[in-house]
Amino acid sequence: MPKNNIINLFAEILDPSSILSGDELKSRFYHIWKTDISLESLCLLLPKSSEEISSIVKICNENNQEIIIHGGLTNLVGSTISNKSQVVISLERMNKIIEIDEQGKTITCESGAIIENIIDAVKDKDLLLPLNFGARGSAQIGGAISTNAGGLRVFKYGMTRNLVMGIEVVLPDGTIISSLKKLMKDNSGYDLKQLFIGSEGTLGIVTKVVLRLYRLPKTRYTSLAVTNNYQSVLDLLKIMEDKISSSLTGFELLWNDTYKKMVDDKTLYNKYLPDNFKYYVFIEYMGGDFENDYNLFESVVLDSINKGVIDDAVIGKDDKEQVNIWGIREDVAVLADERDFDQQFDISIPVALIGKVIDKISKELKDCEGVKTIYPFGHVADGNIHFIIGKDSDDDVLKSKINDIIYNNTKLVDGSISAEHGIGLDKKKYLIKSRSEDEIDLMRLIKKSIDPKNILNPGRVI
Amino acid sequence: MPKNNIINLFAEILDPSSILSGDELKSRFYHIWKTDISLESLCLLLPKSSEEISSIVKICNENNQEIIIHGGLTNLVGSTISNKSQVVISLERMNKIIEIDEQGKTITCESGAIIENIIDAVKDKDLLLPLNFGARGSAQIGGAISTNAGGLRVFKYGMTRNLVMGIEVVLPDGTIISSLKKLMKDNSGYDLKQLFIGSEGTLGIVTKVVLRLYRLPKTRYTSLAVTNNYQSVLDLLKIMEDKISSSLTGFELLWNDTYKKMVDDKTLYNKYLPDNFKYYVFIEYMGGDFENDYNLFESVVLDSINKGVIDDAVIGKDDKEQVNIWGIREDVAVLADERDFDQQFDISIPVALIGKVIDKISKELKDCEGVKTIYPFGHVADGNIHFIIGKDSDDDVLKSKINDIIYNNTKLVDGSISAEHGIGLDKKKYLIKSRSEDEIDLMRLIKKSIDPKNILNPGRVI
Repeated sequence: MPKNNIINLFAEILDPSSILSGDELKSRFYHIWKTDISLESLCLLLPKSSEEISSIVKICNENNQEIIIHGGLTNLVGSTISNKSQVVISLERMNKIIEIDEQGKTITCESGAIIENIIDAVKDKDLLLPLNFGARGSAQIGGAISTNAGGLRVFKYGMTRNLVMGIEVVLPDGTIISSLKKLMKDNSGYDLKQLFIGSEGTLGIVTKVVLRLYRLPKTRYTSLAVTNNYQSVLDLLKIMEDKISSSLTGFELLWNDTYKKMVDDKTLYNKYLPDNFKYYVFIEYMGGDFENDYNLFESVVLDSINKGVIDDAVIGKDDKEQVNIWGIREDVAVLADERDFDQQFDISIPVALIGKVIDKISKELKDCEGVKTIYPFGHVADGNIHFIIGKDSDDDVLKSKINDIIYNNTKLVDGSISAEHGIGLDKKKYLIKSRSEDEIDLMRLIKKSIDPKNILNPGRVI
Repeated sequence: MPKNNIINLFAEILDPSSILSGDELKSRFYHIWKTDISLESLCLLLPKSSEEISSIVKICNENNQEIIIHGGLTNLVGSTISNKSQVVISLERMNKIIEIDEQGKTITCESGAIIENIIDAVKDKDLLLPLNFGARGSAQIGGAISTNAGGLRVFKYGMTRNLVMGIEVVLPDGTIISSLKKLMKDNSGYDLKQLFIGSEGTLGIVTKVVLRLYRLPKTRYTSLAVTNNYQSVLDLLKIMEDKISSSLTGFELLWNDTYKKMVDDKTLYNKYLPDNFKYYVFIEYMGGDFENDYNLFESVVLDSINKGVIDDAVIGKDDKEQVNIWGIREDVAVLADERDFDQQFDISIPVALIGKVIDKISKELKDCEGVKTIYPFGHVADGNIHFIIGKDSDDDVLKSKINDIIYNNTKLVDGSISAEHGIGLDKKKYLIKSRSEDEIDLMRLIKKSIDPKNILNPGRVI
């Protein structure tokens, strides 16, 4: 059918205010970092309920109409871009918190709810949603589920997948699959929600969710430790796991160049420790007992210095010190500079091999003409290292040379080209470096079974 | 093709010792509790490699031959039973431990490895596989993955799903999908392993696995606490979570009748506390610091008594005391008696509602003529309650009346009819009490896409 006719069909089921097209799209965008580029789309729909989404999807299915799904627009692999013939569905109006169950430690909400709003709402009830990553102030929970988002506390609490108890999803044929149970354990048949978590909106549109919460920890202490060899990083991790056990909530690593850039004069942070060490480890401890916890944490850190496992360390006890220390790890925006034609990576490597692999990658990148800066950092305890690489041009040959260095070295150790950001459009070409032909064929089979007309987030992942 | 011809095809690819048929099946069985019943099967195959399994499955696929998969034969929902026309594949010869990565805290092994052997092997390296349930001495890891087994430590470590980093699977067409990565985080495309975890062998045969391990905790303390009201159980859980936080590894509950039966004169266990309380809570604490941990645990327990949250408690500090205390919770075989025509249940209920729902179910069961004993117990912190119900006959009407009481009350609170045992054959009729028609349709669609000829564990789940 002619494209403007489908808008008429939408007009039969939606408020006029829920349909934007033509000039109305000029003030809309596809990514929070690209607010100067107008959204290209046949129309942008702003449904207010799962039922409205179901009706929209049914119309699209009948008309072979492609749909691109918009959450908080913080995606890092190009998933939210669209063209003039595609319908965009934004979840932004579906942001209600439906119920917080204090005794059962769950929250039920619509998928457009912003993660930081959920964190704040449950914090008031003395509960913790452990999802924690830079974009939490914009990212929606539905997007975090669709991409199985990670972040700073995966080591202890797991990826988003581990926090999802129930979801409601609209399938590509418009069927609403609703399983909003507040259960930690449910082996009654296939665990269908697993299909939709991490499949980047290609199999269904997540509309509601039930999340598992934890009791809010009462204490938080932080330490920054330094050493010159990777084995010591692993030894320190082992000591922390033995002594403070599962109260270890963060164990992050910066390499020397990255640390230096983060504490550069232009930044906000003090230099806590000399900047000539190879590794800077950021440790977070969260517990329930003020004095005991601090004494234990301090004794473990001091003991590690005395035994020569680490060269030096500082401990942050109050909020200000902790914010300062974690700022050095978290505010990685200073590593990226558009004039440097950045390339960003998000690889997963077996933990024991990280030291060697990053050395090898860094050396190969240094030998690569056109590369200006190399900033590795990441979630070392769960094997996920990020890279931000600055270059002196946007040359495609250079770009693909850098991709090859990173992804080939990742493949050599059976790693993953995407630990947490997903594949989207941008990494599709390299999926084969992480997954076998047979695996990709099985992904295609599943996509084809559930979305035979390929209307939902087409072209993403596979 | 005639059935004996397919055995000839197997003979072309397998050792003669790997094919058992006819009289050789007399000493084989389908369940460890039914060793007096001979296995019914066209033939029992004992492959030694994933490649052999792939070849077997290819032959079966070409010949529309149904396959039943055997692991440790501890399944509780009838999944391992077979008939004379079905081929049985047992994983028992594929029990090799391939690698323990001490630094990366992973183990890679074949799927026929017995769980207790894995626990022991990693314990030698100061590592913990937290899977812990009664059948661990017979159950194979492949079966635990196929059924997403639970157990005593789900509250802290999650179900089996949370421990699986990678798997190798033979699909119903014989394709080997191998993804044996030692990665905690991998968002490169669909997370295919999730499809096979918990789908009870209906989508593929798990042949190899990579599991996530934890550092072995250095300390373990146990407490048994009593109270007469369910709100106090919840309050105690809250206190434990606040104070000992994630070192809380077990929080289990027995109701009065169950406790009395467990400490009956005929059993091995001392009576630690009077037997007139309604609730008996079993608490496990695992940490890393002997003195500190004990002092903290003791002070939290004493404080809970002093504040009136619980009526009384004992603490087990040494191994002997702890084994005695946990024996009261774990050795539930004394609750089952074949002469009582037992019916066993494994339901999931939102944690906050457990007190009321179990009271209601118990009352309805008591009013039910033919019911002799009602023993509820379970993993209260993760919402999973088991029931063992003794009756004076094997009457089908009574059986189905009891099923209705349990499952209807479960459905009323949006619970699950199977928290950890799965659906198999035995609970298929009741799946609709836990899942919607649309959900079951989606399960069927997935099964049909991956196993169009319905040859793998046919009739199970859906």
